[in-house]
Amino acid sequence: MKTEQENSKRSFEPIQTGVTQIFGIRYPVIQGGMIWAAGAELAAAVSNAGGLGLIGSGSMYPDELIRQIRWAKSHAQNPFGVNIPLFRSDVGELIKICLEEGVRIIFTSAGNPKKYTPFLKENGIKTAHVVPSVKLAQKAAAAGVDAIVAEGTEAGGHNGFDEITTICLIPQVVDAVSVPVIAAGGIGDGRGMAAAFALGAEGVQMGTRFALSEESAAHENYKMAGIAAGESDTRLIAKKYAPVRTIVNPFTEKIIAAENSGASRDEIIRLLDSGKAKAAIRDGDTENGEIEIGQICGMIKEIKPAAEIIQDLLREFSKTAKVFKTLAV
Amino acid sequence: MKTEQENSKRSFEPIQTGVTQIFGIRYPVIQGGMIWAAGAELAAAVSNAGGLGLIGSGSMYPDELIRQIRWAKSHAQNPFGVNIPLFRSDVGELIKICLEEGVRIIFTSAGNPKKYTPFLKENGIKTAHVVPSVKLAQKAAAAGVDAIVAEGTEAGGHNGFDEITTICLIPQVVDAVSVPVIAAGGIGDGRGMAAAFALGAEGVQMGTRFALSEESAAHENYKMAGIAAGESDTRLIAKKYAPVRTIVNPFTEKIIAAENSGASRDEIIRLLDSGKAKAAIRDGDTENGEIEIGQICGMIKEIKPAAEIIQDLLREFSKTAKVFKTLAV
Repeated sequence: MKTEQENSKRSFEPIQTGVTQIFGIRYPVIQGGMIWAAGAELAAAVSNAGGLGLIGSGSMYPDELIRQIRWAKSHAQNPFGVNIPLFRSDVGELIKICLEEGVRIIFTSAGNPKKYTPFLKENGIKTAHVVPSVKLAQKAAAAGVDAIVAEGTEAGGHNGFDEITTICLIPQVVDAVSVPVIAAGGIGDGRGMAAAFALGAEGVQMGTRFALSEESAAHENYKMAGIAAGESDTRLIAKKYAPVRTIVNPFTEKIIAAENSGASRDEIIRLLDSGKAKAAIRDGDTENGEIEIGQICGMIKEIKPAAEIIQDLLREFSKTAKVFKTLAV
Repeated sequence: MKTEQENSKRSFEPIQTGVTQIFGIRYPVIQGGMIWAAGAELAAAVSNAGGLGLIGSGSMYPDELIRQIRWAKSHAQNPFGVNIPLFRSDVGELIKICLEEGVRIIFTSAGNPKKYTPFLKENGIKTAHVVPSVKLAQKAAAAGVDAIVAEGTEAGGHNGFDEITTICLIPQVVDAVSVPVIAAGGIGDGRGMAAAFALGAEGVQMGTRFALSEESAAHENYKMAGIAAGESDTRLIAKKYAPVRTIVNPFTEKIIAAENSGASRDEIIRLLDSGKAKAAIRDGDTENGEIEIGQICGMIKEIKPAAEIIQDLLREFSKTAKVFKTLAV
C-alpha cells in the first residue's frame, strides 16, 4: 500500500474537529461506503492518507465482508470502518463480524438506527448514521449515534424522499442536533468541503469522488461513464418508491418512461431489479445497468489515487479558507 | 424609508468583490426580483441597506412598472435594478421603460439573453442573467452579460429542467465562465452566503429570505405559509414541462396527482394556470394558489425588515469566515 510514499505526501497539518476527535482521524474526510466500489483497497488507501475509509458491506455476503475487513486490517495503518445498510436481513450477522474482527467504527444507513445503536455503543463502537432530513437526524441523535451524516439529494445511489439539497439540509441539521454533522452530497473538491464547513459541518463524506479513484473496486466502464458525465447527466429516478440517483442511460430511460406513463409501484420496483447496480458498477454494463453516482460527477474529470484526491482536497480547502481572510467584514 | 436608522445600522465594512464593483453596491447581496413580492418598497429597502434591490417586473404591466420605478427612485439612496423575464412578449417595452426612467441595472431571466444584452450594454446598462446550468451560463457569458446568477434547483418559483443543486452548480459555472458569478438557490443566512463564497461565487441572490420580509409585497397569508413550512414542505412540480418550486398544498397535490397518473403536457399546463401564483402570493389564497418559494423556507422562522435581514446575514457571514481561521491547514 505504498505507505512511505503516502506518508511523505502528508504535507498538511491535522484538521481538528468533533469528527476527527470521535473517529481518531487526521482529516475530517470520510469516504462513503458505496456498494461494489468501496472495498478494502479503497478504505485502506483513504485511511492511510489520513481520512476515514469505509468498507461498503451493502454489496457483500458475510464471508466476503470478513475477507475484506482482514485485508484492510493488514494494509491500513490508521482506523477504518464499515458501512452497514440497516435494511439487510442479516444486519445482526454483519455487526457480529465487525465486532469479532475488531472493527471500531460503524456507519449505518438506510434504516432505523434505534435498534442497533445502543448495542454498538455498549461494545465501544464509534457510530454515525446517514440521514436525508432533519426529522431523521433528530431520531438518529436520540438513538445515541456519535455523529450524523446529513446527505443531500444530489448524492449518488439511494436517497431520501424529500429531495432536500445539501445547502438547505446541513445548516438545519446542525441547528437541530448536538452531535457533529458530516456533510454529504455534491462535495467533490476542496471548495465543496469548505462550503460544508461554512454550513456548520465538521466533516465531509464523499462517495462519487472516491468511486472514481484508482483504488475503487468499480468496473473501469463505470469509472469512464462517471468521468464522461456532465452536470446534467444524472437523474433521481423512482422518486416515489425508492429514489436513486444514476446516470441517464437506456436502463434509466425505461424507468423514467414508466414513471411518466403512470406505472404502478410494483412495476417500477420490478424494473429496479436489485441486480442492476451490480451489473453497472461491478460488471461494467453501462447500457443496461444502474450507474449509481452523485450529481457532482459532472465536475470530476480524472481517475486518481485516493491519497492524491485527499491531498488535492486539502490544498483547495486551504486555498478557499484563505479567501475568507481577504473579505473584510 | 427610515434612511437614518438604516444607515446607523451599517456596522459592517464594505465587502469588495467583482459583483460589488460592477453594480456599485456596498455588500454582494442581491434581492431576487420575485413576482408579486419584489416591489419598489422591498427593492429600496435592500438598496438602502447596502445590497442590491431588484423590482420584479414579471408580475407588472408596463404602467405599474413605471410607477414602481418612480417610487424606488424617490426612496432609494443607492443603486437598484429591475428583473425582466425574457419570455414576456413586451420585453422591448419593459426595457424601454427602464432606459427612460434611468434604471442602470437590469437582471434578465427565463429566456435567451443573446437578443437584448448587446442593446443593454450599448446603453450603459449593467446586466446579469439567471441560469440553471453550465451550458446556459456559457451562452449568457457569450452574450456579453456582466455577471451571471447561477441558480440551483432548491430555488423557489420557476426553475431549470436539469435539477442541478447549488453546491454542484456554482463551482462548475465558476470554472466555465470568466465573469463574476452570483449564487442563488438555498441561501437563507450568512452560513449559506459563506458557502456560496467557498464555492467561488462573488455574490448571493436571495429570493425566499426577502419574500418573507416586512417590505415584501407578498400577502400576509403567503408570508405565514413560508414561515410555517418545514424543510420537506416544498416540491418541484411540473418537472417535465415547466418546473416550479412551491409549497405542497391542495393545488400542488392536484398537479402531483396528475403527473403521477401520466397526465399529458396540455393537461399539466392547463392546471398550472398562470393566475395561480398571483392568487397565492398577491391575494393570499394558500389553498388553491401556487405558493412559489424556495426550499430554504424551512430555515426561516421570522418576518423581519430587509435591513435587519442584511445585518444578520453579514454578522453570520463574518462569524463563519472566522471559523476558517481556526482550522489549521
